[in-house]
This record gives sequence, structure tokens and C-alpha cells, in this order.
Amino acid sequence: MNKAIENNSDITSYIERLGKSAKGAFRVLSRTESGIKNRALGAIADSIDQSRSLISEANQKDLEQGREKGLNSTLLDRLALTDDRIDAMAEGLHQIMMLPDPVGEITDLRFQPSGIQVGQMRVPLGVIGIIYESRPNVTVDAAALCLKSGNATILRGGTEAINSNQAIVACITAGLESAGLPADAVQFVDTTDREAVGALLGLEHYIDVIIPRGGKGLIERVSQVARIPVIKHLDGICHVYIDDYADIDKGVRVAFNAKTRRYGICGAMETLLIHRGVAAETLSKLVPLLVEAGVEIRGCEQVVALAAEARPATKEDWGTEYLAPLLSIRVVDDLDAAMAHIAHYGSGHTDSIVTQHLGRAKRFITEVDSSSVMVNTSTQFADGFEYGLGAEIGISTNKLHVRGPVGLKGLTTQKYIVIGDGHIRP
Amino acid sequence: MNKAIENNSDITSYIERLGKSAKGAFRVLSRTESGIKNRALGAIADSIDQSRSLISEANQKDLEQGREKGLNSTLLDRLALTDDRIDAMAEGLHQIMMLPDPVGEITDLRFQPSGIQVGQMRVPLGVIGIIYESRPNVTVDAAALCLKSGNATILRGGTEAINSNQAIVACITAGLESAGLPADAVQFVDTTDREAVGALLGLEHYIDVIIPRGGKGLIERVSQVARIPVIKHLDGICHVYIDDYADIDKGVRVAFNAKTRRYGICGAMETLLIHRGVAAETLSKLVPLLVEAGVEIRGCEQVVALAAEARPATKEDWGTEYLAPLLSIRVVDDLDAAMAHIAHYGSGHTDSIVTQHLGRAKRFITEVDSSSVMVNTSTQFADGFEYGLGAEIGISTNKLHVRGPVGLKGLTTQKYIVIGDGHIRP
Repeated sequence: MNKAIENNSDITSYIERLGKSAKGAFRVLSRTESGIKNRALGAIADSIDQSRSLISEANQKDLEQGREKGLNSTLLDRLALTDDRIDAMAEGLHQIMMLPDPVGEITDLRFQPSGIQVGQMRVPLGVIGIIYESRPNVTVDAAALCLKSGNATILRGGTEAINSNQAIVACITAGLESAGLPADAVQFVDTTDREAVGALLGLEHYIDVIIPRGGKGLIERVSQVARIPVIKHLDGICHVYIDDYADIDKGVRVAFNAKTRRYGICGAMETLLIHRGVAAETLSKLVPLLVEAGVEIRGCEQVVALAAEARPATKEDWGTEYLAPLLSIRVVDDLDAAMAHIAHYGSGHTDSIVTQHLGRAKRFITEVDSSSVMVNTSTQFADGFEYGLGAEIGISTNKLHVRGPVGLKGLTTQKYIVIGDGHIRP
Repeated sequence: MNKAIENNSDITSYIERLGKSAKGAFRVLSRTESGIKNRALGAIADSIDQSRSLISEANQKDLEQGREKGLNSTLLDRLALTDDRIDAMAEGLHQIMMLPDPVGEITDLRFQPSGIQVGQMRVPLGVIGIIYESRPNVTVDAAALCLKSGNATILRGGTEAINSNQAIVACITAGLESAGLPADAVQFVDTTDREAVGALLGLEHYIDVIIPRGGKGLIERVSQVARIPVIKHLDGICHVYIDDYADIDKGVRVAFNAKTRRYGICGAMETLLIHRGVAAETLSKLVPLLVEAGVEIRGCEQVVALAAEARPATKEDWGTEYLAPLLSIRVVDDLDAAMAHIAHYGSGHTDSIVTQHLGRAKRFITEVDSSSVMVNTSTQFADGFEYGLGAEIGISTNKLHVRGPVGLKGLTTQKYIVIGDGHIRP
């Protein structure tokens, strides 16, 4: 544990000091040119490369402690920093260096009738608090995205990764300093005390936004307590609707990919809706593929009647994010019934229609109220890289501010700029 | 009081019913064309015009009850619906009809390397709750802006205006119905029970955003309780900084206008900062004008030494939004000191620099972290009409989502749209 805390048992005042320093560092970052931010990112990458053995040693300590605590193999795997993963951290930094800097862009600068010029300038959000779980590579990713977009960051990582995170943060600090930037631009909550999270979430004078990254439990806890705006997504209950005007083969291909490409990601399809006119044909083609892939099927009465492999779905199934080889399937009467199902059970993450009917596609795109709405495409495309944003810090199902994959632009806001020449308002 | 509540004493379940109906109405509004929304706005204007005597009678009742309750003359004036104000309500509706509809705009639609097309579509926020105080004309303004931007609205007006608001809402309902839109698109909390506000603020499943309009007390109460995102501004502690490279005459004109044009609006200057190099000259020209206008001056030591009319300012003065003929003035050493003062005491609303120095203007614009940052211009320009947005529903000092004057676009969000032709993610 860090000296600051040894000397001061009060977590709240420690966190407040971090917040205050972050605000100060933000004022420097907000006027820092892209070139300097990129130099810092490059220096962090170099420092990580040169500190491989230190990072590995620290990570070994975390893994040993994790094994002693009885962490399961999934968690241990997330925690492990293999040589490939260390390479990937450095590589990620180089990718973020190459992304265009959104800060400073001025748009819609126009003269108004009064003679003043009014426009909008893109600026950083300010101080961002990131609260995350066991993956230590988040430390670098999150810090780099925030730094490039001109924000100061306070990182609160998982308890299990404390040694790895300390080693990585040392590289970040070294990189910042070698580029002449304040070390406080990226700070790390250097304690495993759980009270630190509560203190962060109440620091409304210093922190502008909180981004939780982790499981649903973490995100719910953060959202309930935070007095600061939170950029988050809770659930990814994603739907594919196969319309009666669908090209069935495309529908089968899209649905199969949306479910099986990866089960554990938030863009995975959890419920398939099929128009009753094409249910029999679609199921006859799709179910054998799913069964072969080891996917368990739960269906409405009509699905159970059509596919022997399907067990009856309960009401809970329609509202569950399985993140597993499990799929609920429902036959619906028409597009309206499909959209009503999505409005009722969906989580506003990503929903897709498969249809060749232009009017149906148009209605689905207009009326489905989700962060990503798709036509004839797999929901697994919901991702910052696939959308051309470069790296992403997460996916937001918020309605306000940023919605969908959050890249650099999502970490900024706009302010109005007004330019006159002694203009006064009549 | 409305029948629904007589039959059901439970306010929470009444508010929940409003929320559920609003969500249903939103699904219709979200697919409604501009032409139909405009037809409804026109019909509401007609209905208001035809219901003048009913509105006036209802308003007289509110005014009488207000007088009995001992409301002061400012509040009674806000409450009064004169013939001119009724004209202004109808006129406001026609102006909103003429504004372009932001909904449906698709931007940045581009092919990605995978072959999918990704873009963003502008869509309504959903259900907006408006909580406001005694001005009954807010009922029409707020409902019209939300309707035009495709949102369903739940209005909670001031207790003192309940009769006026009922009469106005009857016109809104008639207008909606005559255009074939659901009456639930604009609903009114038809009770003066204070618990209704708390119930609204907890309705996170049905309401997407809350906009409080009123005094600081109302907004603080709403922000503390709401579990729903709030678009708000608390304080308008606006600054003008007169730099040593300023054209002093322009500085004096801008500062005088920023303070005296109207005292009670959030864009009024509350603190003037002056570079020490031009303090004597600026004060010698500005102070007599302020004194003549009846403005009381509170200053730092240097100001008190230079201007006999100034009383010493306390630390509280720098953090106070006077909204009155009162001005605090401080002499600063340089631009950095001015920006540090603004960062410490400002409220992130609107701040202006007066300077002819391009580098200083550039630094001020880049580094001052407020919703509007101005050069050589009066802070009183901070206004949706002056910025070319048309009508505004308020000014936001939030960092996330909308910042500065909030017009139709601020009442919308964007979702990603993704179009493929059977594309699956590798």
C-alpha cells in the first residue's frame, strides 16, 4: 500500500486528494497538443516493453495469491499477463496513437443575426473515474483512451490484480513524465480497501464521469451509489428478428453467427424472433446447426411444436442475458409483435432485423429504441473496431450523451464558443 | 383533481400509470412524420386562441388563490396570463412549427472494411418529465418542444398554477387528438400532492430524462432525489475578464451590458476580473456607469483602493449568483490567475474574455471549461435564440449530453444503424 495511505488512515481524504490532483492535471491536459499526448503514449509503450520482467513478476504474485484465495480458472485466466498480452498492451497504445484526436474540433461556426459568431468546440470531459475488475490490461487501455482524449483518469482496479496494476501504473507514470506531462494525469487508487469505491463515487466536485467495466453486479452497485454521471451498459439482451420477407438462408447464417461466434460478449443474440410465416422453414434449417454447436434451445409453444430439441421457455427466459450456449426462440405474428417483444424484454443494446422488405427495414430502424439497430447483419458486429471508431472503452446503453460503442469521441463533450468584437446584447 | 386519483389514493400507482401511457405514446410519436407533429402544434395554437376566455378564467382563479395565500407581487406577475402572454404562447407554437425537425437525420453512414454500413440516426430521447414552477406558459413551451422532437412528455407544474395549467393542457390534448396523435403524448400530473414529484423522479423504467425548470432550490431537490438523468443548470456564476490587451472601451461596454441588461437571468455577469495593468483605466470608466445604473460594487483590496464606491468583497461574494444589481470585481495578475479564479469559483455556465490578443483569446477558449466560452462579447448572449437554435427549453451546465442552451437537438440522441446483406462477423 502506498505511503499516502499509511500516513493517513482516512480513505475519503486520500481519494479527495487524488480527485484534486486529477482536476489540476486535467487543466494541463486540456491544453496539451496531440503530438505531446502521442509522445506520452509511445513512451508508455516503451516503458511497458522494457519492464516486462517486472510486470510478469508482479503478475505472478497476483496469480499465486489468487490461487491461494481459490479463484476459479476463468478468473485466473483473466488475471494472467502472458507475454502475448503484454505485447498486446504495447500494440494497443500504438493503435491509439494513430487515431485522430477529437479534441479542439470546431463545428457549425456561423454568424448570427446579431453579428456574433457561434460554434461548438469539442473538449475533454474532465476527470474520468474507471472502476474495473480483474483484467489488468484494462489499466493501460482505459488510461490511454482517456489520455488521448485529454481527460485525467483515476483508476480503481480489481483487488486481485493490485500488484500487476501497480507495475503497469509505474510504466504509465514514467511515460507521462518523459513526455513532460503531469504524473497525476493518470492516478491509481493504490489500496484494496473497498471503501475507496464509495469515496470515488461521491466525489462529484472532482470527477465528471464514472465508467464501470465489469460484470453486471459491479455496474449495478456503481449506478446505485454514484452521484456522478455513469457511462454504462447493464445488459445485452440482443434480438434477431427474421421477417417473413427474409432471405431465409441469410437469416439462418446471421442468427447462427449472432449466437455462436462468441457466447460471452454483450453483443451476442439471446433471443431469436421468427415471423410465423417462415418459422417452420427457418427452424428446420437453423436448429440442427445450433444443436450441433451444442446450443440449448428454449422456445415458445409453437417452437416446441416445430422443433423436438426445444424445451419450453419460461417468462424469465425472455428477460435473461445468458452469455452462454443457450438460446430462447419465439414465433411472432408480425413485425409489430416482434418490436413489442423487443420493447418489453430488450435492454436497448443491439437488435437486428433480417428482411428484404424495405418498408419493414425502415420501420424497424426507426422504431426500435436501442443503441444499435441492424438490418441483415449479425449483432456480434456491435463493437468499436467494427464501427470504425478504433479502440473502445465499452458499450453504452445510456440514452444521454454516448450510446453504443464508446471510442475517443465518446470521451469528449462540446462547449459553445462565441466570438464578437465588443458586441452587446440589445 | 382528476378522476383517476379520486378513485385511487395511491399517488405512486397514478404516476406509474402516467409513465406507462407515456411510453406507449412515445412508440407512436417516434414514428410520426414532421408534418403531423406540425399539424398538432398548429391545432394546439388554434385551440389556445379559441379558449382564451376559459384560460383567463382559470388563471383568475389561480391569481385569487395566490393573493389569498399571500404570494408576493413577483410570483403573482409570473403566474398571470395576460392577453399578450396568451398571444405569445400561440406565437411560440408557430415558431416551433417552423423549426427543422432534428429526428431521423442520418450522419456518417460509411462502409466499414467488413462490408457493413455503419451510421448514426438522430432519434427522440423517449419520455421526458418536466418539473417546473409557477409560470404557466412553460406548459405550452415545454410540451411543444418535446412534441416536435418526438418525445412524450409528463408535465408537473407549480401548485399555484394548477387551474391555468389544466385549461392549457385541455388545449394541448384537443390539438393532439385533432392531428390523430395519442392524447398521452403530453400528460399532466393533475394533482397538487407533493409526493407526485418524488414518484416521478423514481420512475426510471418509464422516464428517460428529467428537466427541472425553476429556482435553484427546485433544481437541487430534483438532482438529489432523481434516479433518472437530469438536464439542468444550478448556477450561472458568469465572468467577464478584461485582459491588458483589451480595447478598454469595448471591455467597458461588454461588462456593462453583461451586468445591467437584465439582472435576473442566468447569463448575467456576476464577477468582473480585470488585469492589473488596465484596472485603473477600466474602473475609472466603468464604475460611474454602474453606479448610475444603481449597481452595488464589491471588490478586492485593489478595487476598493481604486474605486471609492466599492465595498470590500468577502470570499462568499466570489461564489454567489446575485441575480441582482450587485457586482463583485477582482483585479488579477494575468490570464492564468483569471482562469484559475474561474475554475475555482465559476459554475461552468458562461465566461467571456475581452482582449485583442489572439493567443490569449485562444487559450481562454481552449482552457475555460464552461458550457459557453466567449471572446469580446456580453455573457447575456447565452441564449438559444441568439445561438440560432430557435426556442430553448433551458440552459444545461451538465458535461454529458447537451451543454449550453438546449433546443430541439438537445432533446434528441443518436443510435447506431448498421446495414448489411447477410453479413456475419468472422
